[in-house]
Amino acid sequence: MHIKTFKELVTQYKVVFFDAYGVLKNHSGMMNGVKELLAYLKQKNIDFYIITNDASGSPTLLSKYYSDRGIDLIGSANMVSSGMMSMRFLKENVHPGSLVAYLGRITSEFYIKEADLVPIRMETVKPNDYPKLGAIVLFDDAGYDFQPTINKTLNVIRGTDVPVVVANPDLVYPVNESESALAVGSVANMLETVANRKFFRFGKPDPSVFELAFEMANKQRKISKREVLMVGDTLDTDILGGNNFGVDTILVLSGSTLKNQAQKMMDDKQISPTYICNSVVD
Amino acid sequence: MHIKTFKELVTQYKVVFFDAYGVLKNHSGMMNGVKELLAYLKQKNIDFYIITNDASGSPTLLSKYYSDRGIDLIGSANMVSSGMMSMRFLKENVHPGSLVAYLGRITSEFYIKEADLVPIRMETVKPNDYPKLGAIVLFDDAGYDFQPTINKTLNVIRGTDVPVVVANPDLVYPVNESESALAVGSVANMLETVANRKFFRFGKPDPSVFELAFEMANKQRKISKREVLMVGDTLDTDILGGNNFGVDTILVLSGSTLKNQAQKMMDDKQISPTYICNSVVD
Amino acid sequence: MHIKTFKELVTQYKVVFFDAYGVLKNHSGMMNGVKELLAYLKQKNIDFYIITNDASGSPTLLSKYYSDRGIDLIGSANMVSSGMMSMRFLKENVHPGSLVAYLGRITSEFYIKEADLVPIRMETVKPNDYPKLGAIVLFDDAGYDFQPTINKTLNVIRGTDVPVVVANPDLVYPVNESESALAVGSVANMLETVANRKFFRFGKPDPSVFELAFEMANKQRKISKREVLMVGDTLDTDILGGNNFGVDTILVLSGSTLKNQAQKMMDDKQISPTYICNSVVD
Amino acid sequence: MHIKTFKELVTQYKVVFFDAYGVLKNHSGMMNGVKELLAYLKQKNIDFYIITNDASGSPTLLSKYYSDRGIDLIGSANMVSSGMMSMRFLKENVHPGSLVAYLGRITSEFYIKEADLVPIRMETVKPNDYPKLGAIVLFDDAGYDFQPTINKTLNVIRGTDVPVVVANPDLVYPVNESESALAVGSVANMLETVANRKFFRFGKPDPSVFELAFEMANKQRKISKREVLMVGDTLDTDILGGNNFGVDTILVLSGSTLKNQAQKMMDDKQISPTYICNSVVD
Repeated sequence: MHIKTFKELVTQYKVVFFDAYGVLKNHSGMMNGVKELLAYLKQKNIDFYIITNDASGSPTLLSKYYSDRGIDLIGSANMVSSGMMSMRFLKENVHPGSLVAYLGRITSEFYIKEADLVPIRMETVKPNDYPKLGAIVLFDDAGYDFQPTINKTLNVIRGTDVPVVVANPDLVYPVNESESALAVGSVANMLETVANRKFFRFGKPDPSVFELAFEMANKQRKISKREVLMVGDTLDTDILGGNNFGVDTILVLSGSTLKNQAQKMMDDKQISPTYICNSVVD
Repeated sequence: MHIKTFKELVTQYKVVFFDAYGVLKNHSGMMNGVKELLAYLKQKNIDFYIITNDASGSPTLLSKYYSDRGIDLIGSANMVSSGMMSMRFLKENVHPGSLVAYLGRITSEFYIKEADLVPIRMETVKPNDYPKLGAIVLFDDAGYDFQPTINKTLNVIRGTDVPVVVANPDLVYPVNESESALAVGSVANMLETVANRKFFRFGKPDPSVFELAFEMANKQRKISKREVLMVGDTLDTDILGGNNFGVDTILVLSGSTLKNQAQKMMDDKQISPTYICNSVVD
Repeated sequence: MHIKTFKELVTQYKVVFFDAYGVLKNHSGMMNGVKELLAYLKQKNIDFYIITNDASGSPTLLSKYYSDRGIDLIGSANMVSSGMMSMRFLKENVHPGSLVAYLGRITSEFYIKEADLVPIRMETVKPNDYPKLGAIVLFDDAGYDFQPTINKTLNVIRGTDVPVVVANPDLVYPVNESESALAVGSVANMLETVANRKFFRFGKPDPSVFELAFEMANKQRKISKREVLMVGDTLDTDILGGNNFGVDTILVLSGSTLKNQAQKMMDDKQISPTYICNSVVD
Repeated sequence: MHIKTFKELVTQYKVVFFDAYGVLKNHSGMMNGVKELLAYLKQKNIDFYIITNDASGSPTLLSKYYSDRGIDLIGSANMVSSGMMSMRFLKENVHPGSLVAYLGRITSEFYIKEADLVPIRMETVKPNDYPKLGAIVLFDDAGYDFQPTINKTLNVIRGTDVPVVVANPDLVYPVNESESALAVGSVANMLETVANRKFFRFGKPDPSVFELAFEMANKQRKISKREVLMVGDTLDTDILGGNNFGVDTILVLSGSTLKNQAQKMMDDKQISPTYICNSVVD
């Protein structure tokens, strides 16, 4: 397992797709050196996009996290979120003007409204709303009183037959160095089993979110997949997704995949990146 | 689908195993006529046991539900709960005196103490308790602050490698005529996937809980399986469990299996009872 | 595990369903004492049926095996074969007069002709027959040149979209005391995976073949499931099927389930019979 | 779906991994222009390897297919076969000098002998050979009397507990433009289910065969994965395997993936190559 420097490798590409958590930031905030790295990319004329399984707010809100921390080179046009894929699904599959019941924070309503639909908080749905519902979206594990609202969601799903969209398929997320929390993808699994339904999931490792980022990049300038690099810390989502989309991948060891476990995890999961780096900032 | 009266059929047997919810009681309380039915069984010298996926309290506490409602013929000796199976597992597999972290109501501590072990509420477990833990038990979906305690459970499971016991494998339960809630079996499924572990589940349809009831019945008087009848309202747990244990079964239509769906559900699930009755009290 | 005598137990019932192989016969031929047992059943006014996963010939041909060995009490009216279930499916689902391509012995054509359809041997099917095909049936692992005909079957399945019927779901069968052979159910599994199709399987443990036997028995005289006993040597097919149909079951230890393995197999598979006997003739 | 010319694209790389069937050859023999293509690669100083799920003979024998057809640039050193992976497994896991029972052609014995083991044809194995067996290898669907030898294999597997190696995991292969045949991977699936064992499979899409080719290429000259291109006609094996190994991939439309189905298959399977070409010779 030969390990190179990210800056050495990246100049072979015209576009970089970054995962956010474990790559650019972690539970303590932004990683040191990210600001300088993005300036370096700009100087080398390398475009970048942040592909994230996060549907907690609009691309503008997601990018605000970075500008609030002094990283001005990340704007809403750099964000590619799983919420955007869910929005596209809603737009293509739900009759305009329908109600969409959602589980999550109020800031996620953006994705429903942008699809020309009317958001309704899960807590407030009543059986006489059922005929007007066009879809149900599970955005997030926060923003509501957990147990009663999950149970309410179950009853709304059972009482209707509209599509159920999971806007973030992640099962778990880190909250600090030693602890994790269940993400909305786990809630979705639980509801799917009990309701005996098949939900629609959007986000990495599904190649469609990479397809969206690739389309966005090609609107800036014409590129081929050969010129695209995906960088992430998780084999199952970032590397598998990038590989399956047919682009080169870099696994960084600054997040969920620890240096001493990387080789074993690659062997067990049978997923290898094109390269391995300690981090994007070393 | 020929439907007979329970009272006609039951005299062929010496022992009856009843499911509780949907058979003897429902969301409104005890069904009318249960008291008279139990007196009839006594007169006919037919013993009975209530086999229930309920670990929320001791057999004494579970039977108190009935005596509080004037049903004096149901005592703790008639109760066979999934909690009792879990207790037996703990007794046989965990070193006496160990701590057992549990998720549920304080009344479930009975099953840990009876196994000569020391209960500790999940909320209060600290990493320095990990070496003293002998098992983790998931009893119930109530008795704790849901989201933080579920996440805490995930971290305790990930931080140790002790057996995880699911004392009630049910995925869902009815709360009123039209609404349901997720039971602790669903929480267990979610945690099991994320923790990538195999939990130990006790309760119907696992034949071991029927085996326990059969042992208890045989301590009263010598019987064969041919003389035992299992009565329940759910094909997947009551009827499947009774069938797999090799005893006759009656499906009652007073609970989760509605009259107009029964035949289709039997066909889909490929599970048939020996008989079908409207209820135990008709 | 208390073991009783079959003759003791059987008098509690009015109808017995027998599995054939491992119960009434084995690789050496008929078991000693079967003739006398059937005479005893007749004297006690107990009807019997042989439920068999065998579609290699008509009920008449299947019963001839017994009459050729001096067992005159078994006639075609006593035979309930998986072939009969397949025939019923063909009759209900295929347009009369259609061609049905089959894999198996010529004696299985009976089941196609009785469904008012036209059999065609798999070996002779040509692409220009495809539009006239109404179904494909896999009857048996014998009666054809194995490798080319299996490959031919794959190509016919891929070239059409008609239903594929598996008239015997067994995966393996014993050929002598120490050796086994792959049955047509294994061939079906292999083809199903490669063709990426879902086949229709008929035979034990599917309750529908028990339903058919129960209907036939009820045409002789009115009986309830309580009066029916299923006897078999295999937990996965005979006992599981009988249990799921809601009748009492006896596991005999004269076939595939050996005495010293029975308890462990019952525990592992979580399937228990009502009774266990050494054999039907002890 | 933008389609480029292979010759245009290949000059970006230093090493090409080719799949054989559907890429360089098909049921009619070598594709026109392959000889010239290989000369072009040589002139551009691009090395190449043929990665094939074929264990029917030694690398020398596999390369002879090409030299017999006038393609002199393909020698045994260019061949990377699934048989070589199986040989490596045998060498590392079986005690030297042990017997290895095999299913396949006599030309596959090469892989057993090279692992310092003693081949024995499956047909001739006797129960008293069991204690001397170190492994069982399934090489091919040809070279033996199919049905009796498959059944024999089942009995040998059941009679021993040695590892079972599948030297070619393919389920099916084309025999002409419209017909297919079951490959030994399908036979392996059937036996694995019935024997209730877990076999060891070697070949694409398992990344280890790509690892072996990458090691061989690096012995010639130092290269990185970025400089490697995998070319194949099958999404499930060639493209998935190349992607998971982290190298760029080209899907060619000259074999199992037809031009008009390519986009749908990529969407359904969620596997995309880096590029798509009509063929390697256009």
